[in-house]
Amino acid sequence: MSDNLLIIAASETDSNLYYASRFLAPDAFIYLAIQGRSYLLMSDLEVDRARAQSRVDDVLSYADLRERTKARGVQKPHEGDVIYTFLADHGVFDLTVPDNFPLAQADALRALGVTLSVKEEPFFAERAIKSDVEVAAIRAAQVAVEEALEEVMQTLRAATIRDGGIYSEGVPLSSESVRRMLHLSLMAKGCVGQHTIVACGVDACDPHNVGSGPLRANEAIIFDIFPKSSETRYFADMSRTVVKGRASDGLKRLYDTVLVGQELGISRVKNGASGKAIHEEIEALFESRGYKTGKANGRMQGFFHGTGHGVGLDIHEPPRISKSDWTLTTGEVVTVEPGLYYPDIGAVRIEDMVWVRDDGCQNLTTYPKALEIP
Amino acid sequence: MSDNLLIIAASETDSNLYYASRFLAPDAFIYLAIQGRSYLLMSDLEVDRARAQSRVDDVLSYADLRERTKARGVQKPHEGDVIYTFLADHGVFDLTVPDNFPLAQADALRALGVTLSVKEEPFFAERAIKSDVEVAAIRAAQVAVEEALEEVMQTLRAATIRDGGIYSEGVPLSSESVRRMLHLSLMAKGCVGQHTIVACGVDACDPHNVGSGPLRANEAIIFDIFPKSSETRYFADMSRTVVKGRASDGLKRLYDTVLVGQELGISRVKNGASGKAIHEEIEALFESRGYKTGKANGRMQGFFHGTGHGVGLDIHEPPRISKSDWTLTTGEVVTVEPGLYYPDIGAVRIEDMVWVRDDGCQNLTTYPKALEIP
Repeated sequence: MSDNLLIIAASETDSNLYYASRFLAPDAFIYLAIQGRSYLLMSDLEVDRARAQSRVDDVLSYADLRERTKARGVQKPHEGDVIYTFLADHGVFDLTVPDNFPLAQADALRALGVTLSVKEEPFFAERAIKSDVEVAAIRAAQVAVEEALEEVMQTLRAATIRDGGIYSEGVPLSSESVRRMLHLSLMAKGCVGQHTIVACGVDACDPHNVGSGPLRANEAIIFDIFPKSSETRYFADMSRTVVKGRASDGLKRLYDTVLVGQELGISRVKNGASGKAIHEEIEALFESRGYKTGKANGRMQGFFHGTGHGVGLDIHEPPRISKSDWTLTTGEVVTVEPGLYYPDIGAVRIEDMVWVRDDGCQNLTTYPKALEIP
Repeated sequence: MSDNLLIIAASETDSNLYYASRFLAPDAFIYLAIQGRSYLLMSDLEVDRARAQSRVDDVLSYADLRERTKARGVQKPHEGDVIYTFLADHGVFDLTVPDNFPLAQADALRALGVTLSVKEEPFFAERAIKSDVEVAAIRAAQVAVEEALEEVMQTLRAATIRDGGIYSEGVPLSSESVRRMLHLSLMAKGCVGQHTIVACGVDACDPHNVGSGPLRANEAIIFDIFPKSSETRYFADMSRTVVKGRASDGLKRLYDTVLVGQELGISRVKNGASGKAIHEEIEALFESRGYKTGKANGRMQGFFHGTGHGVGLDIHEPPRISKSDWTLTTGEVVTVEPGLYYPDIGAVRIEDMVWVRDDGCQNLTTYPKALEIP
């Protein structure tokens, strides 16, 4: 695989490109790292801003390169032709690209004789290892998450139960209204929350169901809050499960089991640990306590997602604590979030974000864990 | 090109996949349209939610297909192997994919003998043609944009000028504080604003500079507001340019020229019109009034971006009103947003969103246009 890199993407949605360029743009642009120097090829619209804001060595005008491409006889240059002009300048025709590299451009470059090798994620291995500055950014977003959830918890504590519904100052609380509270609170703190989960009862048994309709007393409510800081672009991620009112004995036992599993997982995270081994140990614990996983009554039940994922510029990024083989490494930030889901009992997920250290991990989450809100 | 389609992407960021499936997920999943039926291949985590929420004909379990792939002798099936099992079931090995199809999966499928043809955007031609329901969604987001900007305008009207700064209740207004006002206001209306531009003076001369620092009186401030509705996933987009205080004669003339150009552009939009011809007519108008475009004093100046772009599930989507060849078609929603940028005069961009009709267009934007705020 070549040390020379090519990325074509929009950095607002492609974190590898943002990581490499530290330049944010809504439309696709071209990044190259050739013989130790990094380059952007930018449209007239973006070239000056890229020169001012990006951290690459050189920002080149795509329009100028396109003119040179026409001058060498290409009548209507395609993007691949223009990149080829740049490559010819450097005598480099062998590039490594990310696994999500767009096929149209790949086919065009290959047709011109350029060799492209795909590198699977992590494309930049160092992206997984968070510096103190990056951890501070993640922690700052996490503070916003905890403050936002605390506002909701104060509302829930003050709320009253009537006919199974939960009322705040006479108004029934719903997944939608509580999600809006969270999103406004996060936005006031400079964080963008999207797809935030406030899911009650059976909704919560589907781990990515964001939840809808009135919240009900005496049933599990899962909060899963994972906003992105507008300023730093780093995410945070936390889940908590609560019941307004009284939890059934079955739900209490489910909660205690998930909590024990989560604490076990956190205790196992350290440099060199196997993500797969941690995941399987939690699976075995749940199984040993009688909580089976698999399809039942036509739907998935039990523990049917990974234990954790890396968090950084993406909400889901390497490493993983799951069925896949990953070795945890000092400096990674990873969630630990086992869950158990049974429509006839309820759903529980508890998630903290931890920073992998040589001999353990540092929990970046400080929000308390308690099932019942009286 | 085959009528059978394959998309692999995360629908939260890939609008073609969301359009085809109407299913939102943060991680990549597989969509196929084969012989007139549509399918999703979903992980255990998402399979039940996809069955409940997506609009495809069949949702299949990826895990089940993977087991069958192992049963036919593939020891550690790659995603390509699993898709191949599905294709073999249907006897189809010739697929059309979008231009951003991920290269890793393309290489894997081609190595198995599957033919992939890339279709350039628009992948779904019908995505550009907006139904009444889609236009209502865009218009609803636009109402949020206009209400949010009006709140800022009220603040600016009530603000006082001191030493060239703009003060609201004694506090200096900045790009950051005004952007936060806009984002909070949009969020309260169910819209997510990101990268909203509130750029003053020289900042605004770089069309995608979001702006930073104190806002200054008597200088152009560009607002470019383009949030996405959380509920419908449709965007709206509007730009306005204002001066708190007094604009120079040069800036007034610049503003009037852009406004005349914008009105000219809007008057030309109708079914069958050439986007390129409209763009070139505005370029010629600006040139005829003495406003040159090109590099001057080391930076781009003049009118160096497209006149307009389609708006829908993406903020930038087909069609274009630009240097490229596009024919406008009834039902498209497109912006008309010429701009002129000169650091020694100021920057002006005025943007409305219009709906292409048979004999003209319907302006979806109702916010007034006025340069000076006394």
